[in-house]
Amino acid sequence: MKIAVDAMGGDNAPAVVVEGVERARDRFKDIEFDLFGDPQQVRPLIKDATRINLIETTEMIEMGEEPVRAIRKKKDSSIVRAAVAVKEGQADAFFSAGNTGAILAAGLFIVGRIKGIDRPGLTSILPIAKPGSGAKNFVYLDSGANAESKEKNLLQFAQLGRFYAENVLGVNNPRIALLNNGTEEDKGDRLHKEVHQQLKAQGDLNFVGNVEASALLAGEADVIVSDGWTANAALKATEGTAKMMLTLIKNGIENGGLRAKLGYLFLKPVFKKIAKLMGTSTYGGAVLLGLKAPVVKTHGSADALAVENTIAQIHTMIESKVIEKTVSYFGQVQSEENIDKPSKN
Amino acid sequence: MKIAVDAMGGDNAPAVVVEGVERARDRFKDIEFDLFGDPQQVRPLIKDATRINLIETTEMIEMGEEPVRAIRKKKDSSIVRAAVAVKEGQADAFFSAGNTGAILAAGLFIVGRIKGIDRPGLTSILPIAKPGSGAKNFVYLDSGANAESKEKNLLQFAQLGRFYAENVLGVNNPRIALLNNGTEEDKGDRLHKEVHQQLKAQGDLNFVGNVEASALLAGEADVIVSDGWTANAALKATEGTAKMMLTLIKNGIENGGLRAKLGYLFLKPVFKKIAKLMGTSTYGGAVLLGLKAPVVKTHGSADALAVENTIAQIHTMIESKVIEKTVSYFGQVQSEENIDKPSKN
Repeated sequence: MKIAVDAMGGDNAPAVVVEGVERARDRFKDIEFDLFGDPQQVRPLIKDATRINLIETTEMIEMGEEPVRAIRKKKDSSIVRAAVAVKEGQADAFFSAGNTGAILAAGLFIVGRIKGIDRPGLTSILPIAKPGSGAKNFVYLDSGANAESKEKNLLQFAQLGRFYAENVLGVNNPRIALLNNGTEEDKGDRLHKEVHQQLKAQGDLNFVGNVEASALLAGEADVIVSDGWTANAALKATEGTAKMMLTLIKNGIENGGLRAKLGYLFLKPVFKKIAKLMGTSTYGGAVLLGLKAPVVKTHGSADALAVENTIAQIHTMIESKVIEKTVSYFGQVQSEENIDKPSKN
Repeated sequence: MKIAVDAMGGDNAPAVVVEGVERARDRFKDIEFDLFGDPQQVRPLIKDATRINLIETTEMIEMGEEPVRAIRKKKDSSIVRAAVAVKEGQADAFFSAGNTGAILAAGLFIVGRIKGIDRPGLTSILPIAKPGSGAKNFVYLDSGANAESKEKNLLQFAQLGRFYAENVLGVNNPRIALLNNGTEEDKGDRLHKEVHQQLKAQGDLNFVGNVEASALLAGEADVIVSDGWTANAALKATEGTAKMMLTLIKNGIENGGLRAKLGYLFLKPVFKKIAKLMGTSTYGGAVLLGLKAPVVKTHGSADALAVENTIAQIHTMIESKVIEKTVSYFGQVQSEENIDKPSKN
């Protein structure tokens, strides 16, 4: 398999991207990489060029650029070139740690949607942080690709999430939940009430009802589906609060004198475990699900470990044929719909 | 001043309500209480009846009841009777720890809106959890009274929050921010983009721009305004994550052997401080702002301290005349609008 990598995206690019790629290359003997970037910057960083092809690009999309305009204008940017390589079948998947909006736009407009999918959903793999919970991770989408979502988008997100959980996380008959402002089925605004009923009516979904944002990481489902707006707010609040709690503890230790510092020494393994659980390096990247190939981004401040783990995730996506299975499912749904409503076609 | 108290609402009512009322009565010599409830249950709990009038009610609205139907049918419930007392001027404010929906409905339909306010906003006073921040609390609304909000609602929330911060928290020229999915002014869906521009255009507001849910408790503003849907999700995620982090630490200590337990002993003051900062007892209740009188609820699991602090908050609201000032402001806005558009009237 071959992965097209944007070598220039991210706060610490190209250094951490190259380092992460080399680590992943050593870990997976069946991956070959096309690295898109400025050879003058990238080449000196490559320690061993085995299965790494450096492809020269002359432009770069910066973090602050307006995404759609950027991908239209900068045809020779590392993001656009890597996406085109996937579109043209020269590579099987796309990876970047760059401008999120530009990655989403490149995925949507260059790689393209699966037939039957109206909007792709940005999918995060999040930790389950409830002690004693069986599962370790869950699938969360749309964590921010769309500021406004319709019913059919959320139903498609549920199916996309189901295929991901089954094939990439290996969950049998994954539990699907809807993020809502209450657990009872009559809770929510019009959109969420309606989506609840429609999810319930889907025969092929193991729908377990609503979850509230307070229980996001509590392991109540294997897939939590939401409109992009709400999911983004809940995810940011969760990440922000986890960080803030660790800052408060750190601050308390620093200002707590010798006693607190001793306490810290004793509790260090506990804090390390929690920081690892809540850390962003462990779970790989965010996948733009609903596209014809894996388009995966990791955050701009990713380290080499995060890059390596994200590539491991792409490896599982390709190996499990999750996209092919999703394409086949939505193809079938579409042809059934066409048979059901012949007069409309 | 007189406060109408629903003695029957809350998981531990009437015991903690009565205890909290007695503590507040001892603390504030100028408050008199009308306690609405079942005398058989309430009377034996009152240790000292000074400035406490027990008023018999025969019905109770349960936690799970459909709110609007409940307040229409149960005319002799403690919630409805207390709200009617406020409406009829027999009391200056309403307090309950009961069914949130019923409190909101009683506030809206019995106490009534201030002229010029389309929708009241549920207002929480939250802690600022960034070490070294100057301010200690901020005003957050609408934390869940409305599942769907319009532009004018958010603009009114901003003004309501400003009056509260100025008068009740004593903040001079409070900084107002909009909860949004990015800090740049072009971020957000249509509603939030439009509200941003309109807040910016309000001459009497110290608008400081957008804040993201990740920075909710970071002290970037004295008032954070949001539609009820998003604010509810962000608040629940924040509260849920703070609790979860404490659970993870507790679990780590319990499973960390003697070493971790020793560490806990040394760090106990730090954890206590954080638990107090993030705790719900400290900051009083949630106010339904935009009504003709203070209508304040505390959470169902409130203890006597939370009841006492919520009554202290009501005391400040009455003393500061925040409602009168708000009424006067919106009255003026309305008459200016009427002068501006004479043909419409």
